[in-house]
Amino acid sequence: MISVGVIGATGYAGSELMRLLVNHPQVEKIVAASQSYNGEAFSAIYPNFYKIYDTPLVGADIPALVKEVDLLFLSLPHNVSSQYLSHAHLEECVVIDLGADFRLQNVEVYEKWYNTTHPNPALVKEAVYGLCELYREELKGANLIANPGCYTTTSILTAWPLLMEGLIEEESIVIDAKSGVSGAGRGEKLTSLYSECNESIKAYGVTTHRHTPEIEEYLSLAASKGRRRDGITLSFTPHLIPMNRGILVSLYAKLKRGVTFERVESAYQKWYQDEKFIRLLPPGILPETRWVKGTNFCDINYVVDGRTNTLIAFGALDNLVKGAAGQAVQNMNIRFNFPETSGLEALGAFPI
Amino acid sequence: MISVGVIGATGYAGSELMRLLVNHPQVEKIVAASQSYNGEAFSAIYPNFYKIYDTPLVGADIPALVKEVDLLFLSLPHNVSSQYLSHAHLEECVVIDLGADFRLQNVEVYEKWYNTTHPNPALVKEAVYGLCELYREELKGANLIANPGCYTTTSILTAWPLLMEGLIEEESIVIDAKSGVSGAGRGEKLTSLYSECNESIKAYGVTTHRHTPEIEEYLSLAASKGRRRDGITLSFTPHLIPMNRGILVSLYAKLKRGVTFERVESAYQKWYQDEKFIRLLPPGILPETRWVKGTNFCDINYVVDGRTNTLIAFGALDNLVKGAAGQAVQNMNIRFNFPETSGLEALGAFPI
Amino acid sequence: MISVGVIGATGYAGSELMRLLVNHPQVEKIVAASQSYNGEAFSAIYPNFYKIYDTPLVGADIPALVKEVDLLFLSLPHNVSSQYLSHAHLEECVVIDLGADFRLQNVEVYEKWYNTTHPNPALVKEAVYGLCELYREELKGANLIANPGCYTTTSILTAWPLLMEGLIEEESIVIDAKSGVSGAGRGEKLTSLYSECNESIKAYGVTTHRHTPEIEEYLSLAASKGRRRDGITLSFTPHLIPMNRGILVSLYAKLKRGVTFERVESAYQKWYQDEKFIRLLPPGILPETRWVKGTNFCDINYVVDGRTNTLIAFGALDNLVKGAAGQAVQNMNIRFNFPETSGLEALGAFPI
Amino acid sequence: MISVGVIGATGYAGSELMRLLVNHPQVEKIVAASQSYNGEAFSAIYPNFYKIYDTPLVGADIPALVKEVDLLFLSLPHNVSSQYLSHAHLEECVVIDLGADFRLQNVEVYEKWYNTTHPNPALVKEAVYGLCELYREELKGANLIANPGCYTTTSILTAWPLLMEGLIEEESIVIDAKSGVSGAGRGEKLTSLYSECNESIKAYGVTTHRHTPEIEEYLSLAASKGRRRDGITLSFTPHLIPMNRGILVSLYAKLKRGVTFERVESAYQKWYQDEKFIRLLPPGILPETRWVKGTNFCDINYVVDGRTNTLIAFGALDNLVKGAAGQAVQNMNIRFNFPETSGLEALGAFPI
Repeated sequence: MISVGVIGATGYAGSELMRLLVNHPQVEKIVAASQSYNGEAFSAIYPNFYKIYDTPLVGADIPALVKEVDLLFLSLPHNVSSQYLSHAHLEECVVIDLGADFRLQNVEVYEKWYNTTHPNPALVKEAVYGLCELYREELKGANLIANPGCYTTTSILTAWPLLMEGLIEEESIVIDAKSGVSGAGRGEKLTSLYSECNESIKAYGVTTHRHTPEIEEYLSLAASKGRRRDGITLSFTPHLIPMNRGILVSLYAKLKRGVTFERVESAYQKWYQDEKFIRLLPPGILPETRWVKGTNFCDINYVVDGRTNTLIAFGALDNLVKGAAGQAVQNMNIRFNFPETSGLEALGAFPI
Repeated sequence: MISVGVIGATGYAGSELMRLLVNHPQVEKIVAASQSYNGEAFSAIYPNFYKIYDTPLVGADIPALVKEVDLLFLSLPHNVSSQYLSHAHLEECVVIDLGADFRLQNVEVYEKWYNTTHPNPALVKEAVYGLCELYREELKGANLIANPGCYTTTSILTAWPLLMEGLIEEESIVIDAKSGVSGAGRGEKLTSLYSECNESIKAYGVTTHRHTPEIEEYLSLAASKGRRRDGITLSFTPHLIPMNRGILVSLYAKLKRGVTFERVESAYQKWYQDEKFIRLLPPGILPETRWVKGTNFCDINYVVDGRTNTLIAFGALDNLVKGAAGQAVQNMNIRFNFPETSGLEALGAFPI
Repeated sequence: MISVGVIGATGYAGSELMRLLVNHPQVEKIVAASQSYNGEAFSAIYPNFYKIYDTPLVGADIPALVKEVDLLFLSLPHNVSSQYLSHAHLEECVVIDLGADFRLQNVEVYEKWYNTTHPNPALVKEAVYGLCELYREELKGANLIANPGCYTTTSILTAWPLLMEGLIEEESIVIDAKSGVSGAGRGEKLTSLYSECNESIKAYGVTTHRHTPEIEEYLSLAASKGRRRDGITLSFTPHLIPMNRGILVSLYAKLKRGVTFERVESAYQKWYQDEKFIRLLPPGILPETRWVKGTNFCDINYVVDGRTNTLIAFGALDNLVKGAAGQAVQNMNIRFNFPETSGLEALGAFPI
Repeated sequence: MISVGVIGATGYAGSELMRLLVNHPQVEKIVAASQSYNGEAFSAIYPNFYKIYDTPLVGADIPALVKEVDLLFLSLPHNVSSQYLSHAHLEECVVIDLGADFRLQNVEVYEKWYNTTHPNPALVKEAVYGLCELYREELKGANLIANPGCYTTTSILTAWPLLMEGLIEEESIVIDAKSGVSGAGRGEKLTSLYSECNESIKAYGVTTHRHTPEIEEYLSLAASKGRRRDGITLSFTPHLIPMNRGILVSLYAKLKRGVTFERVESAYQKWYQDEKFIRLLPPGILPETRWVKGTNFCDINYVVDGRTNTLIAFGALDNLVKGAAGQAVQNMNIRFNFPETSGLEALGAFPI
């Protein structure tokens, strides 16, 4: 049993983390922290927690919290909290950062895409990338875990076997991603208003979305069998969909000469057949976000288009669960040697 | 540990029941039955169950199933399955009927509102009405449980303390109810199409909705302290809302002379303060369906309008959980002496 | 042909007004004004206007605009613009105010419900209430028109014949209203975020909504045949529905002794049969917001519930058209002696 | 002034056509026909037409209707009506077919993708493809016009200048398309139910969607400057989005060596700068379906991704207007020498 802290508990990812932790069998104590709502009952912000977790929020004080808990989750935008983090803190407390600051190993790439100075370059090398299925062994000893982005998790998991097994033309990759609105967070922005998002679809962040270099870095590692963090560049285009949750990635790539459907199938099987949270769907059933909503699953399937020699692969997950809080809990489970599915067994409801 | 069967497992209420049963700690075996999908893998119909419950559906054979399981759930429309049920079956197996046939004790009232001959009047007297909070003791020994309707559960729970404590003018009750579309079921009807429901609101079943006599019967019992099943007539008007799940009931009634807010408050406290699944919200926080989605909670709050001497009470629940499958599981827990919250502890996610 | 100005053109009601004016056959010039977006192309804010109205917005300068145009629309929140308005301005230019400041003739009532000092009590008596069907004659000579609120228009039109003809018990009126989210405007508020509104329903402003005294004032006039602006108090409860547009009012009242369906029917016919924008629907077809979306229609129908002696009447309109901008244009048409339907003939699209 | 008939007037495209025709200044008479609803008032099926077009529907009798009207619209699924059409009919009456039967000039391709025998191959050569902006001259003399599909219109318009000007690698084209649910029509299908579509996204018809060969045929003509109807094969993947209306096409292709943004820009300008219904949006404003809803516009914009040498172009339109009924009216206007924008000037409302 461990005690955990959550900084940024009142954001959408933070509150989803709270939901998963409240019923987690190995978590005995949760400290929820927030700068904006310090002192208010958590259930006053999120009445779904009423009579379940009514404890007042505490301030977002990293030095105090690392002394108080075994594990601290940071659920804040990039460049907000990580400058307060030190090597000494990591010796007192495991940190899982749901923000972006420690995801890219190349600080220059970070600074270019995020258009800012890196807040804590010294700790970058200590971070392990928290894409559980790919870095499970490294995560077991990590004191600083960089939880991946939501688009990133979907994209990398969908593409990984194709690149590891060398099945697609690397320069031909196109990722067209679609996300529900909760991915934009709880900020009071015009573009997040109901009447601005509802009944419409748009692309955004075209050629500039910050998950792009993260996808490229890890797919480069796949393509180079771990030797290089660059080499792959790809077209990544996110779209906003009028729904609360869910990400669907549609990945297009030219197959290398002679690659058959069976070869693709065996690549996915090789990498994912024993994974609890990756479901390779049966033939003919394509991923839909409704089937993974509220769960930690990433559903994957693929079609080979013989006419155009194109591999079309789809990945779907819940951006707040496997794309954020669920993966963070999965990382906690791995790090603390709990059963990896602990607290994450919930089946998705439908229709919901 | 018990074994259970679900007839009508592929409807929305049925599949929600499957979801709750799959993770229920006291259920060791589930047999899912369906006439339409007999032989197909359950997860082929509902891919959220993929790798969780892939077992093929069996036929909807009541006589065979009552021998095979300890408890049989019937999740079918009224007048479909109950004619196949006999007293002998109830000696072999507990039955919880999510349909309407055994909810009204007065067969004539049933026949008038449902405009049909009652399929099994002989069993009506054996049925206990499965509104758990109100009939808990009776349910402990019941072999046939009539699970209430979704509008009914919300309406009765919201009004019950007011009538038990005699606080409102009985002839003044107006219930304006709002439901998500899943309440209409999975039938392929024009009125359930996305483009017909989305971005609009309508009233329907005005003065004729079949949950009306059910609400009236049990509120009459409240008003008469259990002496009469009639006496209360009220105006009940359901509306269809463009959302998947949830019911909100807005109840209006004139307060009896001299009734204060404090009197109303103590009535609700008296009846519900120890109930796990009824949450009396704090002052100023009104029920919203989003806070109960995916859970077995019924949230209630109320306002006294001094200007018009009107009590305005609101109740919100998830029509597929506390309004159907969750209450059915709660009834199972009561009947089999399991902890009443067993399998129903899940906290609602938000936004979802 | 007239020239018009619109102050607050970048709000939802303002931009809807722009849409109606752009194609209006008697409007030759439109000046769009905005404090926040002064200098920006209107179509940069609302790209639906691209290549149709790309003119830059001007500042919200009332004294300058009243000299420049024949008619000035004010489309701003209450207590923002009306203090800048003078009697002299009204001699230069007709003003139609879509805000609340001149709707209530009783300044004290205004100050109580709006919890503020009235910004311009001197002009209140000059204002004519712009509910076109009821005040058409007075509007022909008005220089200051107070365009009604959206809930108000729906509620008053639905109730008016009942009170004028004395068919219902006045103290029994309950209005349960439902509105789409655009009614909350374009402000960047937490409660207007997509993920906060979508897939849920709630009541709000219970017993305190500011449209209440407006409804009561005009229904009092109906009940008293124009003699009194008070006397009617009623329970008005608005609800927020996850859809962009539309208001549905469900009105409940006890019928006076002996009042039949036919009597109700003839009352509605008497008042509305010749109205172009009020459609009394055929028996069995109840108002739904989808049928009036994008139009200036208010659809009305009613049911008599003999069991409870209750009259249930429904009114539906588009909150941004008949509930705001459309009615403002209708008022313009009446005031300037244009055909009353000019620029308002568009039929609603479906599904949209 | 002409008289027109609409067969299939009660489908979504048909009723949208009715909406546009009812206010069309050059249409003096409309005969609405339907097999399913023969004899019923049109406004009983679509109450938005109440008091506007209440005329009863007539039967779907092509031989009778071609004698009665100047122009007959067929708005039915493929292979339903076209076998009843003859050369003689086309001498009596112009026909605009919104179905698929006459879109593909190659009957074998039709038979393969539609998996059926062509119902009327003799008339295929008489048909002119009704993509107005590309075949305007040919349409002026056409007696049989094949109105394009919704995905097709968006895809071809978005890609046309790129291929006409030879700017992209032809084998690299990926089209990822997203559509609202009304595109699936008004049939009572499980997959069109509200609760099945809402709050989710999926791809469908992957590698098999019937609009694929239509897109390929006309883009092949573009690439070959009209010499060939084949040559281009591309990956076309449609997705279903939880919204009523709208299509967004995201097109990805590798730029040919040396092609700059300016070259792309001038290609689009060359082809579309004078088109009333194609809006090339200003830099930085990407197409969103909300800005074209209810209108006949196709909005287009594009981004050059220098990192990956990819051209990303977006096209958005309303699938029921420019993607169906609006384009049909535009074709009528061209064919009968009416102003091309007649009846199509309506500006889109927002939010709606």
